[in-house]
Amino acid sequence: MTVLASLSRTRAALLNQAGIKVTRDPARIDETEIKAFNRRKGSEAGVCAMALAEAKALTITARHPRTLVIGADQILNCNGTWLDKPRDRDDARGQLRMLRGQTHELATAVCVARDANVIWHEIQRPRLTMRNFSDTFLDGYIENLSRDDMAAVGAYRIEGRGIQLFERIEGDYFAILGLPLMPLLEFLRGQGELSQ
Amino acid sequence: MTVLASLSRTRAALLNQAGIKVTRDPARIDETEIKAFNRRKGSEAGVCAMALAEAKALTITARHPRTLVIGADQILNCNGTWLDKPRDRDDARGQLRMLRGQTHELATAVCVARDANVIWHEIQRPRLTMRNFSDTFLDGYIENLSRDDMAAVGAYRIEGRGIQLFERIEGDYFAILGLPLMPLLEFLRGQGELSQ
Repeated sequence: MTVLASLSRTRAALLNQAGIKVTRDPARIDETEIKAFNRRKGSEAGVCAMALAEAKALTITARHPRTLVIGADQILNCNGTWLDKPRDRDDARGQLRMLRGQTHELATAVCVARDANVIWHEIQRPRLTMRNFSDTFLDGYIENLSRDDMAAVGAYRIEGRGIQLFERIEGDYFAILGLPLMPLLEFLRGQGELSQ
Repeated sequence: MTVLASLSRTRAALLNQAGIKVTRDPARIDETEIKAFNRRKGSEAGVCAMALAEAKALTITARHPRTLVIGADQILNCNGTWLDKPRDRDDARGQLRMLRGQTHELATAVCVARDANVIWHEIQRPRLTMRNFSDTFLDGYIENLSRDDMAAVGAYRIEGRGIQLFERIEGDYFAILGLPLMPLLEFLRGQGELSQ
């Protein structure tokens, strides 16, 4: 059994749907401090996402000896500005106004740790371009925001109504949802965790 | 309200999740005859998929005057061989043996018709490469085939365990699931069916 060091329901669902049995054991880490440190250092978003993913995985390996622990994180980077999950509807509206008509990157990191060591990691950087939607469209979108939408950076999920925000999507669908699934599956096969 | 001229639960779900209200009114057409005709003509798979999509949409426009009717179809083309939905588990096993280690194309067509005219269409051709999985893996996969898997050409759904079959996926995720969703949304916005 593999452990997922993340609270994300989407990531757990991605793994379960792919036939991978994981238990969730969310790690509590100080994301704000790690992000602030990486901003001061001038790290690119992918490096910071990986630092967060590794911190999550390493935090809980001690509780799961000789077990593979998956850590993951994602940072939305739009022209150098990094977005967090929206605090409320007004914040969601502000994020979407900022993203409108622009291309942003979803720096998505996944790692696997065992017994205090990171033994594998991968970063993917899908790029998404929002169309120049109208304020009327935005009002309707904000009015119908779900709890799941609010739990996503950028306040969108492309597997839902969020797809209407976009004019162009480049990169792996699973990475956009928060987990570079195919390279992770390949690693797990190599470890004998999945049938070859 | 838009009408979907397809039985596919996946296509209806894709549209509903994206916030598009559609009613389903599946068209009965002679797929075998259309495919045989296109094979004799030497059509490429995308052209034949479009012929099927248009035949479906046009068949039911008479029942829905002044209404947009969406038709869609998909053909799996592996080195010139076109696969249909598997008849049974043995057929599914045979299809997966043929696809193993190969790259295939999912020629995916969508069109919109109104009052006996096709007013818009689009073809996408995602390419998927299956890894060289073992017979043991294949046995386990076939053992756990679901009804939904059996309803798919190639006996896989990448949104489920089917993702474990692949080493490389190129092209739009929604097209792989059976519907080039983003260009369709753009067309529907242009028609005033969706907010701009």
